[in-house]
Amino acid sequence: MTESVHDLLQELLKGDTRALARVITRVENRAPGSVEILRQLYPRTGKAQVIGITGSPGSGKSSLVDRLAAAYRQKSKIVGVVAVDPSSPFTGGAILGDRIRMRTFGIDPGVYVRSMAARGHLGGLASATADVVTVLDAAGKDPILIETVGVGQDEIEIVKLADISIVVLVPGMGDDVQALKAGIMEIGDIFVINKCDRAGVEKMEHAVSAMLSLSHRTDGWEPPIVRTIATDGQGIGELIETIGKCHQFLDNSIVRAQKKREVARQHLISVLEERLVMKVLNDAFPEGQLEDIVGKIAERRQDPYSVVEEIIQGIAFKK
Amino acid sequence: MTESVHDLLQELLKGDTRALARVITRVENRAPGSVEILRQLYPRTGKAQVIGITGSPGSGKSSLVDRLAAAYRQKSKIVGVVAVDPSSPFTGGAILGDRIRMRTFGIDPGVYVRSMAARGHLGGLASATADVVTVLDAAGKDPILIETVGVGQDEIEIVKLADISIVVLVPGMGDDVQALKAGIMEIGDIFVINKCDRAGVEKMEHAVSAMLSLSHRTDGWEPPIVRTIATDGQGIGELIETIGKCHQFLDNSIVRAQKKREVARQHLISVLEERLVMKVLNDAFPEGQLEDIVGKIAERRQDPYSVVEEIIQGIAFKK
Repeated sequence: MTESVHDLLQELLKGDTRALARVITRVENRAPGSVEILRQLYPRTGKAQVIGITGSPGSGKSSLVDRLAAAYRQKSKIVGVVAVDPSSPFTGGAILGDRIRMRTFGIDPGVYVRSMAARGHLGGLASATADVVTVLDAAGKDPILIETVGVGQDEIEIVKLADISIVVLVPGMGDDVQALKAGIMEIGDIFVINKCDRAGVEKMEHAVSAMLSLSHRTDGWEPPIVRTIATDGQGIGELIETIGKCHQFLDNSIVRAQKKREVARQHLISVLEERLVMKVLNDAFPEGQLEDIVGKIAERRQDPYSVVEEIIQGIAFKK
Repeated sequence: MTESVHDLLQELLKGDTRALARVITRVENRAPGSVEILRQLYPRTGKAQVIGITGSPGSGKSSLVDRLAAAYRQKSKIVGVVAVDPSSPFTGGAILGDRIRMRTFGIDPGVYVRSMAARGHLGGLASATADVVTVLDAAGKDPILIETVGVGQDEIEIVKLADISIVVLVPGMGDDVQALKAGIMEIGDIFVINKCDRAGVEKMEHAVSAMLSLSHRTDGWEPPIVRTIATDGQGIGELIETIGKCHQFLDNSIVRAQKKREVARQHLISVLEERLVMKVLNDAFPEGQLEDIVGKIAERRQDPYSVVEEIIQGIAFKK
């Protein structure tokens, strides 16, 4: 590690926001030395309460996260927000989102908001998110709110990095089955019905309760349903209280250690996945050969299964 | 390849539905011999028109896909449907979805519907979808409709496996920015505003047009916007026609070859990602050592970055 990186980390650990931003940028860009940075910071993590917030686009997650952050600020907490935003390359979605947010928190150094863009072909969004959470945790942010924009397999993996997961739903959206079958029901520790001034709130609450009654949680926690109207702050106090109770319950629960192991496993696998594919794409194919093979696959003169099989067969682990 | 697998593939290629179902199950479960099956089938693929349909939960994708399938049936097409459903382990979401569908297609052998469940920790949903599309394509299904349930990074990767991508939106859902920034705008070849009898359809159409005007497509295709009410079949005829035009345009376009290469690349990387992680988890850790390491990471006595770095450093490629 160069002297400058050492100094940077010292500044970060002292709470300097610019150092924090620079470290995250290095880590996000996989700049040289970023693995060493993460290694240094990891032992200093595990202190923050990490809260994942997921739900469909349009469910009002961003407003909810902003309100939560503001409420934690009033309790003198130093909040980190990671908005995982598979932004469009041509709309610059992340930038737009940040601009809207800056109106709320731009001048408060107690809330640090970071938007993450999609990582292109190779996935790695869960891995990159785990990295940023590691940095924020080491920098003393607590709680750390992870907000996903979509609801998909990758987002579910991201939320698995959190200690507590909140699923945000809205009345009338995805009537009945559809909104609930998107694989998000089993990851929710708390369910929020946002925009609860809309019609259909009872129906949605019944549907969620019905789904939850089929659940087989082994830790004894019964996921509560909280109604909110994030835009005017209604229900946020209750939600904060519920998060606190959930945290306390899970902390005392005997399955807590198991959950910590799951988070650790998810973190390990996320990092492994990304680094492995990068390594193989860089090292397994001589210059230009990858493009050649891709062309052959497109023309059906080669098949991807044989190519991968050959690579896998050719891998050896040094002892 | 055992004799029985050989026979099974012969039956599949003759159009036998039960053989098809059995082959897909083998491939999905990564049963012994499944890689060999995929190798055998891959050269017979590339004939089907693969159409990806994505959009938020509740946008009415399932109804739309059902209507599309029915319309293609009227043109005497043999349709394959892959519903990529990160289903809940406790709700059995996929089963529920299938039951609803069976009412429509249960007795028509000309439509083959397959629901895919999430693949657990290791992701691989895109890889598994690519495998199933390979089997359906080889079995002569054309078109093949891939329907994703969520909208996330993984779903975007799945839709990249398609020749043509349809993004389904609904009026009023995710007012303005939010519905559009979920990273799905740049992958749409056709935009559908479903449930267009709802208020806000003009607003949504304007928002989509505005986003599209910022696009930088190099192939000259201008993504059209089609209004539908899937539940009563309204707009489906126009949508089928639009898909045909899009297909024809892209087929003649000089970027067609490039798109085929991108699909091939995505397929290769999806397969590579999954197989690599499986290989490493199986081979890089002696019995029980993975659990040991996960425990140490959870307790911060070890960090995931160093573990992965050591594995990566230890990989050698045999010449």
